[in-house]
Amino acid sequence: MKKVRDTTPHAPDRPTSRGRRRLLGGLAASGLVVAQRAGAAANPLLKPLDIAPWSRTPGTPILEHPYGLPSAHEADVVRRSAKAWPLPGAASSMTPLADLFGTITPNGLVYERHHNGVPDIDPDQHRLVIHGLVREPKLFTMDDLVRLPSESRIHFIECSGNTGGEWNGPSGQPVQLTHGLLSCCEWTGVRLSTLLEEVGGLSTSKDGQGGRGGWMLAEGADAAAMTRSLPLDRILERAMVVYAQNGEHLRPENGYPLRLIVPGFEGNTNVKWLRRLKFVDAPLQTREETSRYTSLMANGTARQFAFEMDAKSVITRPSPGHRLSTQGYYPITGLAWSGRGAIRKVEVSTDAGATWQLARLDGSPRDRALSRFQLDWLWQGAPAVILSRATDSTGYVQPTREALVAARGLNSQYHYNAIQQWRIEANGEVRNA
Amino acid sequence: MKKVRDTTPHAPDRPTSRGRRRLLGGLAASGLVVAQRAGAAANPLLKPLDIAPWSRTPGTPILEHPYGLPSAHEADVVRRSAKAWPLPGAASSMTPLADLFGTITPNGLVYERHHNGVPDIDPDQHRLVIHGLVREPKLFTMDDLVRLPSESRIHFIECSGNTGGEWNGPSGQPVQLTHGLLSCCEWTGVRLSTLLEEVGGLSTSKDGQGGRGGWMLAEGADAAAMTRSLPLDRILERAMVVYAQNGEHLRPENGYPLRLIVPGFEGNTNVKWLRRLKFVDAPLQTREETSRYTSLMANGTARQFAFEMDAKSVITRPSPGHRLSTQGYYPITGLAWSGRGAIRKVEVSTDAGATWQLARLDGSPRDRALSRFQLDWLWQGAPAVILSRATDSTGYVQPTREALVAARGLNSQYHYNAIQQWRIEANGEVRNA
Repeated sequence: MKKVRDTTPHAPDRPTSRGRRRLLGGLAASGLVVAQRAGAAANPLLKPLDIAPWSRTPGTPILEHPYGLPSAHEADVVRRSAKAWPLPGAASSMTPLADLFGTITPNGLVYERHHNGVPDIDPDQHRLVIHGLVREPKLFTMDDLVRLPSESRIHFIECSGNTGGEWNGPSGQPVQLTHGLLSCCEWTGVRLSTLLEEVGGLSTSKDGQGGRGGWMLAEGADAAAMTRSLPLDRILERAMVVYAQNGEHLRPENGYPLRLIVPGFEGNTNVKWLRRLKFVDAPLQTREETSRYTSLMANGTARQFAFEMDAKSVITRPSPGHRLSTQGYYPITGLAWSGRGAIRKVEVSTDAGATWQLARLDGSPRDRALSRFQLDWLWQGAPAVILSRATDSTGYVQPTREALVAARGLNSQYHYNAIQQWRIEANGEVRNA
Repeated sequence: MKKVRDTTPHAPDRPTSRGRRRLLGGLAASGLVVAQRAGAAANPLLKPLDIAPWSRTPGTPILEHPYGLPSAHEADVVRRSAKAWPLPGAASSMTPLADLFGTITPNGLVYERHHNGVPDIDPDQHRLVIHGLVREPKLFTMDDLVRLPSESRIHFIECSGNTGGEWNGPSGQPVQLTHGLLSCCEWTGVRLSTLLEEVGGLSTSKDGQGGRGGWMLAEGADAAAMTRSLPLDRILERAMVVYAQNGEHLRPENGYPLRLIVPGFEGNTNVKWLRRLKFVDAPLQTREETSRYTSLMANGTARQFAFEMDAKSVITRPSPGHRLSTQGYYPITGLAWSGRGAIRKVEVSTDAGATWQLARLDGSPRDRALSRFQLDWLWQGAPAVILSRATDSTGYVQPTREALVAARGLNSQYHYNAIQQWRIEANGEVRNA
């Protein structure tokens, strides 16, 4: 399980004068005379003590890390699963949001959701076929695709099942396991519209079918042949077929060597290990859009093709697993995103939603990407309930759990985007309760 | 050595019809009846053949990659050194720019430059001291720093020695070894101005010295105690003390657990393993700003404290090690950056500088960050010389090598930012000549 982080305050009464003595003494002992010039005699903190062991001996030579890895001190910052899956190939693992910063997810921690494991694809043998209602069906090698005009954009991906464990109220889980089917990368590849030009555009009538080509089937080369139908008018300007994430080739578990990115759409439509795009005139009602990835409403009907992930936010620090060790200042920080545009604002409450304050956003929020928010907070040592609420550029406001349940019922596995609260106990412990 | 990439074209005469038959046949054999509906009888490409082996068997289970790694097929995309360093602890390794995409450098490939190896620092024991001409000198633990208001920003870092091998003309080296002391990450940490507030601000008179606190000494906790003096008026609004890169804690070789980021300044001033900031009234003339990191001019004087990395660009694809396998369309793409602001434009020439064309830029160029540029090009099969030229938001234009040498002479090791040319031979080979 996650370790408890005993974060200590920075308030004026800290760090302790004993702590100060230790390090300043260390500097004096290190022989850096310039460091002592400014009043060594007058400053009681300057007493010689040992310097840190890592400053005394040469470090690791450069040759040992041609491809770098995290510090051994961060060995518990890894992807985790919410449960032991009966079939580990049809499973998910989640991004450790409580231990991350900023908005980019490093490639080694991007969440996973597979339907039949991670295929080991030889990129020299891999092909993308584009066919159906197009004028010139074609096969593309990876080299063909890299030779097309490319584009790089930062977008989040969120599994439609993310946070599904909260439909019935607080699950008790930490944020990695409640919201960790969420990552954000810079993706590089070819616009779908460029590829459509490469195959001569849509055919208005082909093989006697007379299709308008309003939909596109995307299929993966994994053993599950993950397959989804997508509405062209909602994706053509934004979707990309990508071969790189955060600067390097896709990772195997994220679709190497090729995947679809449909910014803002639920994760499974961003088909990994992409081998086929077929332009069609109606959705093909594949397994993954009938038996799965539809939401059962209270009246027994199914909500199908609800692709966009609606505006959502969550506080990642402090969050369950962290502990407030003393009263005083804490920044409340977290992530906000919307599948329908950019984040316009995030509000934070520290009194269970009675009052709200506008949080700062880092830089200018990007379209369909994670935004980092932050609010200054003085914790007085009393129990508190903290929560965040996102509003996106369409004006949509993240709903309460009660409002979401009223609209969708309790049978729905997918698209849970309600306001999330964390409870802070008098002892500083943070709980999902 | 880098493998030669045999990139094949996407032109209408390719891919071959034989290639088409293989994969479309594969799809037909996979039992996906929907794929065949659109005219299987009429389409000569649809003949049953084997599907790919990775689509036939379950893939690797999720449990095997709690922290992900690149595909084994990309095992040669690693950091490399230009030479075998006599002391591997005082060495550098370079980012494989020719194999990367977009603008973010993945953490495992961020370039390295160390002066005495990589220290193994215990973050619980690490301290940052801030002292000198400040009202309340203080020690900060890592927990103290994470509890301060934070900010995330994307910035490049470039070693001042990057591309130094080209001062005397084309070195023959590929772009990883000519320009690979260059990386770009999202950094998260505390603004220097916030830290200065935490120590009560600058003292106008302290210990009888009456200093104005116009400079700051930054010192690393590595065994080399890397130490630089920095001018406050040029850095206070931008500099950050950071603990994270691309979302996760800093990597050991990039300064774990704490480093300075001075956006736009030469790499060595972004002091890694940061243990000390001392506010002073004049530069302290440390070893790393006297015996190193000054540039010897033709007249024998030294150019000191030339911190900003001037505007620069380089074509990364095609570049030496790539090969153009056929005539036809190629995107010419590369990176541009400036230590003095954002990139305003990049021009590309394919005729050795006789004529120039405006390249596309990906998105809005960010302040002091890498920008990706791209130009469409039809290669006719004749020898060609391709080059790129950046202009930044101050109006500064990247110089020719001749202009740079005329201004700085040939004794200068640092701050080489001239236009770089690659020569394309009739056989498609790309050379640094």
